Order: sequence, then C-alpha cells, then structure tokens
Amino acid sequence: MSDNGNSVNIEKSAYHHGDLRAALISHGLRILSERDAESLSLREIARAAGVSATSVYRHFPDKDALMAALASEGLAQLAAAQHAAADAANGGKAGFAATGRAYVRFALANPALFRLIFASPASACAGEAEAMTFLRQNAAATVGRDMDDPATQALVIHSWSLVHGLAMLMLDGQVPVQDALIDAVIADPS
Amino acid sequence: MSDNGNSVNIEKSAYHHGDLRAALISHGLRILSERDAESLSLREIARAAGVSATSVYRHFPDKDALMAALASEGLAQLAAAQHAAADAANGGKAGFAATGRAYVRFALANPALFRLIFASPASACAGEAEAMTFLRQNAAATVGRDMDDPATQALVIHSWSLVHGLAMLMLDGQVPVQDALIDAVIADPS
Repeated sequence: MSDNGNSVNIEKSAYHHGDLRAALISHGLRILSERDAESLSLREIARAAGVSATSVYRHFPDKDALMAALASEGLAQLAAAQHAAADAANGGKAGFAATGRAYVRFALANPALFRLIFASPASACAGEAEAMTFLRQNAAATVGRDMDDPATQALVIHSWSLVHGLAMLMLDGQVPVQDALIDAVIADPS
Repeated sequence: MSDNGNSVNIEKSAYHHGDLRAALISHGLRILSERDAESLSLREIARAAGVSATSVYRHFPDKDALMAALASEGLAQLAAAQHAAADAANGGKAGFAATGRAYVRFALANPALFRLIFASPASACAGEAEAMTFLRQNAAATVGRDMDDPATQALVIHSWSLVHGLAMLMLDGQVPVQDALIDAVIADPS
C-alpha cells in the first residue's frame, strides 16, 4: 500500500475502467507462450505491465488467483478455437472431428497454457463445468442424442479422452507431432 | 567419501551383490505411492535405505538418474499389469479392451508414478520405445494387421490416446473417477 505518486500516475493514465486486470492477464498469457507456469511470478507480471506489485495484488491476491484467471481465459480461447473449427466444417460429424483436431492443435500451439488449464487445481472445478458443457452440447448435437443419456456421457468423455490423450502424448514427446497423424488418429480408425 | 565404519558395516550386511540399487528403487516407489516426485530427494532415499548419501550417488549420480530408473520400473509394472489383464481376458478384442482398462486403473492406483513415467524428460525416449512396442504388438495381434501399416499405427495411437486421456482427465479431477465410466468409455461407444 505504499505506491509512490509516480506509479499511481502511470496506472491512472494507462489503465482506465478496470483495464489493468485485462492487461495483467494479457501479459500473463504472453509469458506463458514463452515458458511454463512454474517460473511465472506476480512481480514479473507487474513489471511487464509497468505497475507496482501492490496494484497487481488488488486484482490477484496470490499467484494461484492469477493462474486461475489465466486458465479460465485459456479455456475460453480453447472453446473459441473449437467453435470456429466446427463452424468452418459446417457442423455435423465433420464438425465434431474438426473440434477434436482444433483441441489437439490448440494444445500444441499453447503447451504451457494447455497444461495450466487442466493441471491447475484452482481451475479444475470451473474448468470441468465450462469445458464439459461445450463438449456435451457439441457431442449431443452431433449424434442427435439426449444429453442426460449415459451413452451420450460415455461418448462425450470418449471423444474428450481421445483428443486430450493425443495432445498430452504429443506434448510429452511420446508420439511424434505430425499433422497427418492427428487427422488419422481422430478419424474413426476401425 | 567419508562413510564412517558403522554405515559401511550396515551396507555390507544389508545389501549384497548390488541389491542396494534395487532397494533404493523400492524405497523410491514406496515414497511415490505417498506423494509426488517433486519433493523426493536422494538424501531421503538414502535415509530410508539406511545408507549414506555417498552410497546412493554411486548408483544414481543425481535426482534425474533416480527418476529415470523409477519411471522405467513404473513402465515395466504398467506393462505387466496390461499383460496380466490381457491374459485374464484370454486375449483378442476383449483382451485389448482389458489392457486399456488396466492402463487407466494403474494410473489411478499410482498417480505420482504414472505422471513420472510420461512427464519425465529423462525417460521419454526409453519410455516411448518400450510402451510403444507393447502397445503396437498388442494392437496388431488383436486386429491381425501388419505392424508397419500406417492404419495400424493410427489404431495403436488412437487406443493409447483414449486410455491416456481418460487417465489424465480422471487424475486431474476433470472427469469423475468411476469404475463403470472406465468400462463405458473404453467400450466402443458408436
């Protein structure tokens, strides 16, 4: 709580109307595009945004709070990428496969953010609800089934597991990262 | 290199013929069954085995070397669990599904070890070779296909991704841990 006049002034001019929170998240996402979440600190985010650490604490009391916000933003971006892919494929079964490919490609393009979305304990509950809702609706719409049907639930988790596992195995260097392999694995191989 | 006579004496009596390495791995696995790999140290393993840190360094020059050995032992246990499951189901398509269920159940029973097998950069190369060989042979035998066929490769990675993803989503709290759900997801849901 010991901001000097100068840093307060910088914040006032640069961040109106609560934009600082968005700026902090944006800087966090940029840092996550370069390296993983462990080494990221609130102090670094403050420096990147040109504000005091105290100003950051007003929005994110600790690192977990910032990580939860970054995970939530990452999940929104992942969902947007899947929506866009489904739309581009004109929905239906082709659209459903397209959302799967978009999921894996998002993970490969944003490894640290993808890991954060699913590994962050703080985001696990919110994450499940949001991601599950989208996946469920998508799967149910595709197969024309009732969302409360246990078979639909199994299908949704089957599809999610498939793309999540492929993404993790590629990120962890267990399976070669090849675009054609993503297509082949997600297409029904039977 | 400053073992006192007492600790040398303990080692001589307790660990003949290179058994210390096996004992250290065994203590490492026990500790991993209680908590995750990050907090595990060579010093702790030494204490658990009742030997000096110097004695541990003879077998494992650093923590990465111990982690690689634990990951390799974990992979062997995972493969053994899958073999046993396939045998119990008398092989074939039922046996293949059984290996998938065994994979997920192994992950749930050994979360820290499972994560170590797949996340450890030190073990990634050895891990891929061994696990891939088993999965490939298993899948090829089940579907009666040539292992060099690209379609077989896609099928193998499809099956691996499915069970790996389900295991990770359950471990990370994204999907409820339910035995019936494992069965439903691994059974062909189409």
